Amino acid sequence: MKLVRFGALGAEKPGLIDGSGQLRDLSAQLPDLAGEAFAPAALAKLAGLDVASLPVVSGQPRIGAPVGGSPKFIAIGLNYADHAAEAGMAIPSEPIVFIKANNALCGPNDAVEKPRGSTKLDWEVELAVVIGRRAKYVSEADALDYVAGYAVCNDVSERAFQLERLGQWTKGKSHDTFGPLGPWLVTKDEIADVHKLPMWLDVNGERCQTGSTATMIFNVPKIVSYLSELMTLHPGDIITTGTPPGVGMGMKPPKFLQVGDVVTLGIEGLGEQRQEIVAA
Amino acid sequence: MKLVRFGALGAEKPGLIDGSGQLRDLSAQLPDLAGEAFAPAALAKLAGLDVASLPVVSGQPRIGAPVGGSPKFIAIGLNYADHAAEAGMAIPSEPIVFIKANNALCGPNDAVEKPRGSTKLDWEVELAVVIGRRAKYVSEADALDYVAGYAVCNDVSERAFQLERLGQWTKGKSHDTFGPLGPWLVTKDEIADVHKLPMWLDVNGERCQTGSTATMIFNVPKIVSYLSELMTLHPGDIITTGTPPGVGMGMKPPKFLQVGDVVTLGIEGLGEQRQEIVAA
Repeated sequence: MKLVRFGALGAEKPGLIDGSGQLRDLSAQLPDLAGEAFAPAALAKLAGLDVASLPVVSGQPRIGAPVGGSPKFIAIGLNYADHAAEAGMAIPSEPIVFIKANNALCGPNDAVEKPRGSTKLDWEVELAVVIGRRAKYVSEADALDYVAGYAVCNDVSERAFQLERLGQWTKGKSHDTFGPLGPWLVTKDEIADVHKLPMWLDVNGERCQTGSTATMIFNVPKIVSYLSELMTLHPGDIITTGTPPGVGMGMKPPKFLQVGDVVTLGIEGLGEQRQEIVAA
Repeated sequence: MKLVRFGALGAEKPGLIDGSGQLRDLSAQLPDLAGEAFAPAALAKLAGLDVASLPVVSGQPRIGAPVGGSPKFIAIGLNYADHAAEAGMAIPSEPIVFIKANNALCGPNDAVEKPRGSTKLDWEVELAVVIGRRAKYVSEADALDYVAGYAVCNDVSERAFQLERLGQWTKGKSHDTFGPLGPWLVTKDEIADVHKLPMWLDVNGERCQTGSTATMIFNVPKIVSYLSELMTLHPGDIITTGTPPGVGMGMKPPKFLQVGDVVTLGIEGLGEQRQEIVAA
């Protein structure tokens, strides 16, 4: 299934994209796509619906992040060998973990705010994993049983806030709109191999990032298992898993986003995003 | 007011402590103490209640964290000059910010889990600030208008996870039960000067930390204003503001918590906590 949330920010309704690409309304089935809505039994119930009987949503409503509620928004740093090289950092021996404040979550096509005082606003196309079951001390072998599905994420980053202000990355990762997610949450049954997905990102139509989840250093089962030893994961929690080469910080000379720039990005099978940069 | 949440973990009810120290039930007034329940108008409504008419809760129910929902759980590092010295770190020129995963939140007297593989489990008595209004780009002069109240927090830390595993502190701050909060959320009108509160922490009855919020490097208005430039704060969000000297890591030789140890701590006017260490 391709699950979506649509409508005004903060008042999104649940929906799905049917086989012909039409948006259909799930609000008679559940109040929101959040938390326990991503549990295996809840997803199985949605998968059993007669899709043709669901109301078609007319018009072009705003698409929100496909995960509601107040999930944890965890991120893995430097998880692509070639990106670590461009950032001038060593390949990590274990996953680098930080948390994005979840106020950063937004829809895939919402404007991205350039914070006041920002000079180094950057982009990162990433595969996001959405958790479906409470996970604490789960093994790598079992880890995918705890995953509900996948989505595109732009791990928007302010590099000066992240790296030049006493070291904890959260500072440069947490501004409102720094986490466009979606358009869809694609349930894991629809993705044949999550470690073979081409991904890309353009700035103003110019290709900046080209990569594939095939070059991740720590794969999805490893990340889920590793995190589950450090903190308990709950249904709806989001893990964005790192970015391939081509971020602005790594260019020579570095290139950063300005108000009016347009970022487009996508991952095969998971859809595309488009964000215009606006002043905060 | 002294606001509390009582009952089994995950099923807490809202309550308050009356002038004679009795616990009274607020569940007829509101579903939970979470999010918008901390907004000024909502707190004013509670303050206007006839306390004597509220049902007294009998027995000794478990006390939960006084903040429900899924708040952000933000922490400030090295915010006491003397603690920075004991940690062998320079006094920071601006606040050090990290996020504790909110699964760490627990009641003030719940057992604290020693994670598997933990060798350096440590304690930190801290003043926690609870946000009452959405805060984005607020000035220091206005910052206290955005604060609902205060609580005791033990910023439990696994130092090896925090400091010896590639640098992002979140790893050592986020295990379940690493954030005992409470017993009460004390509304700010009850605290004459939040920057003059004595605080202490004992391990197995032996005094380890003695301090005062008077020696904070960055005070509460500065912290709230600073954070509001990096991320939007929402009602119910928690900021724990750093610890005075006397953590285990700073002792010579260092001392860490073992299963069976008992930690007691408190801040004047905000109550006391007691945690026994158990295996995860």
